[in-house]
Amino acid sequence: MRNKWYGEGFKLGVLGGGQLGRMLIQSAINYDVHVYVMDGNESAPCSRFAYEFTKGDIQSYDDVLQFGADKDVLTVEIEHINVDALEALEKQGVKVYPQPHVLRIIQDKGKQKMFYKKHNIPTASFELINNANELSNYANQLPLIQKMRTGGYDGKGVQVLNSSDDLAKSFDAPSLLETKIDFKKELSVIVARNEKGEIKSFPVVECEFNEKLNLVEFLFSPANISMELENKAKLIAEDVIQKLEMTGLLAVELFLTQDNQLLVNEVAPRTHNSGHHTIECNKTSQFEQHLRAIIGLPLGSTAFEIPGVMVNLLGEQGFNGSAYYQGLEQVIEEEGVYVHLYGKEQTKPYRKMGHVTVTNQELEAAKAKARRLQDVIKVISSQE
Amino acid sequence: MRNKWYGEGFKLGVLGGGQLGRMLIQSAINYDVHVYVMDGNESAPCSRFAYEFTKGDIQSYDDVLQFGADKDVLTVEIEHINVDALEALEKQGVKVYPQPHVLRIIQDKGKQKMFYKKHNIPTASFELINNANELSNYANQLPLIQKMRTGGYDGKGVQVLNSSDDLAKSFDAPSLLETKIDFKKELSVIVARNEKGEIKSFPVVECEFNEKLNLVEFLFSPANISMELENKAKLIAEDVIQKLEMTGLLAVELFLTQDNQLLVNEVAPRTHNSGHHTIECNKTSQFEQHLRAIIGLPLGSTAFEIPGVMVNLLGEQGFNGSAYYQGLEQVIEEEGVYVHLYGKEQTKPYRKMGHVTVTNQELEAAKAKARRLQDVIKVISSQE
Repeated sequence: MRNKWYGEGFKLGVLGGGQLGRMLIQSAINYDVHVYVMDGNESAPCSRFAYEFTKGDIQSYDDVLQFGADKDVLTVEIEHINVDALEALEKQGVKVYPQPHVLRIIQDKGKQKMFYKKHNIPTASFELINNANELSNYANQLPLIQKMRTGGYDGKGVQVLNSSDDLAKSFDAPSLLETKIDFKKELSVIVARNEKGEIKSFPVVECEFNEKLNLVEFLFSPANISMELENKAKLIAEDVIQKLEMTGLLAVELFLTQDNQLLVNEVAPRTHNSGHHTIECNKTSQFEQHLRAIIGLPLGSTAFEIPGVMVNLLGEQGFNGSAYYQGLEQVIEEEGVYVHLYGKEQTKPYRKMGHVTVTNQELEAAKAKARRLQDVIKVISSQE
Repeated sequence: MRNKWYGEGFKLGVLGGGQLGRMLIQSAINYDVHVYVMDGNESAPCSRFAYEFTKGDIQSYDDVLQFGADKDVLTVEIEHINVDALEALEKQGVKVYPQPHVLRIIQDKGKQKMFYKKHNIPTASFELINNANELSNYANQLPLIQKMRTGGYDGKGVQVLNSSDDLAKSFDAPSLLETKIDFKKELSVIVARNEKGEIKSFPVVECEFNEKLNLVEFLFSPANISMELENKAKLIAEDVIQKLEMTGLLAVELFLTQDNQLLVNEVAPRTHNSGHHTIECNKTSQFEQHLRAIIGLPLGSTAFEIPGVMVNLLGEQGFNGSAYYQGLEQVIEEEGVYVHLYGKEQTKPYRKMGHVTVTNQELEAAKAKARRLQDVIKVISSQE
């Protein structure tokens, strides 16, 4: 029988059933790729749209092994997966993309940094410590960023230690200590590599962080940087995915320092918040690109369609309960405004509930509109 | 409680579970609108993506009534629905869009033509007959198009009677006889009207029919017509939806005659094959526009994003069985080529299995690429 990656007879498994899986499914529908999802939460954003949904724990060896056993290709939408099970599945002949060896490196921020060092990938200088006590050795090097080696996510497990007063709040866990970089911009490059080793990067984007939340708040595409830096950033991203020998999509977050150096901050081996705008702004979306990379297809064009700004819709402070999107009708009345709700019934402060992409031939006009609309749309909770 | 059209507590019902419903669901996911689908076929293109799928007969009074009873809004993706049940549901307070009175008119091609005549909507002249015998009265007016008043679909129930020799093959059923129009082009306008009466048309498109199949083969956006004709076509479409007092999306097919008259051929009160390109080519897709119209939202911008050509992927002659898309990998390797497979496992000759949209800033370049790719991609059946 011919090799078919669509319709009956081909099963793509996804570990994790959140918004990244949901947008992957929207894209997979176009190619009739049957997407099977496992998540611990039966009302996860993917649950109704998976070809088949399995309730299971992605950190459980048995659950992952059982779910993966009959899949042709297995992928993840979050890094925190039981990698032992993925390795066992790989040995059984299941294609696991990103590969378990990549997840092993990336799950541990210490290993990740050592990988950069070994492969001459530019990154902030660092030290590894085993516990809070060892921090005292570095007190004279403050300010430092402390990142827990494992278990952090979405800004959790990361903190800045500015002065010796901050040492008391440090994490007492195996950690990475990084020099605090005085950066001009935070950039991101989404790069994909398929089974044949073909590599393509999306244009570089610029992230505007909300310092308080340590979350991407606005994303601008294209980044306002020189062509030289654009090319350099893409080469770094392509170098990382090549050296990781990874199949799939990799988001590479970079600092642009005051003296125009590019340093890799961290990477995520999956579709990423900094690539959501590609749905409307590029010829191929990051979701379709990931799909193409892992099921053996040629990669799609990453060329621009239109400039754009992406803004996350976060749950407002002070609201917990059934989500209500205040101002939504007003926002979608405007041209070039694309709302993506993730289907989460319950809002809580800072929860990622959706995102909005604003497109315009002039990026500055898109920025102005996005900032205005962010004030209009608020995720609160239903009132009776 | 506030009026919510997303999440739990709002149910959109769709009668019919084919590709139109499938693409509607892809769009509805962005707004977290829960789409419930009923279709007679458990493996219909929508079945796995509906929030809930119900197996039922859309022509059965009981099935439609039962399915619709707990829905907030009910819509259709095919005209051949039990309208008696829709009327009963409308009386129960369910919002049925398009309204049953519109479906009554459109299901019967005779009533449809009488509606145009009554409302001074330009259309080819016609006669109504009850059976084949009455045809003899019009033998001196040949050539004529005979269309069965009810039951035709996708080119079935329609034939050209060129000479008296053809009378023997005429349908012996209540029919519409239309003057055969010598047209330069076939055009289509997709127009939407929401609950508040707001109306918006998409730019006019040009259809290239396959005469043999009586199916749209290529669709070009924008149509190569004067601005005057463009505006006139849109005004006609807007006039039709206004006079129908319809809520939802209406596809208005028009003939452009040799002497530059525009005549309404027929209309479809739903998303339509001639609007598939809007997914990539316009600010708002026809699917999102329909959704907006029926759930009480402001209509979206119909402005161009990029010119494009849509080509249907029809099952090749001589192949029946499990679908195999020959040349698919080659096609998706090219920039600006968007494949939509409908998830039908079985192919048969001329079955609509998917479509491909080719975009390019230059329409002529898109046309050339679409014609070339149509020769590359073939829907055949799997061979062992």
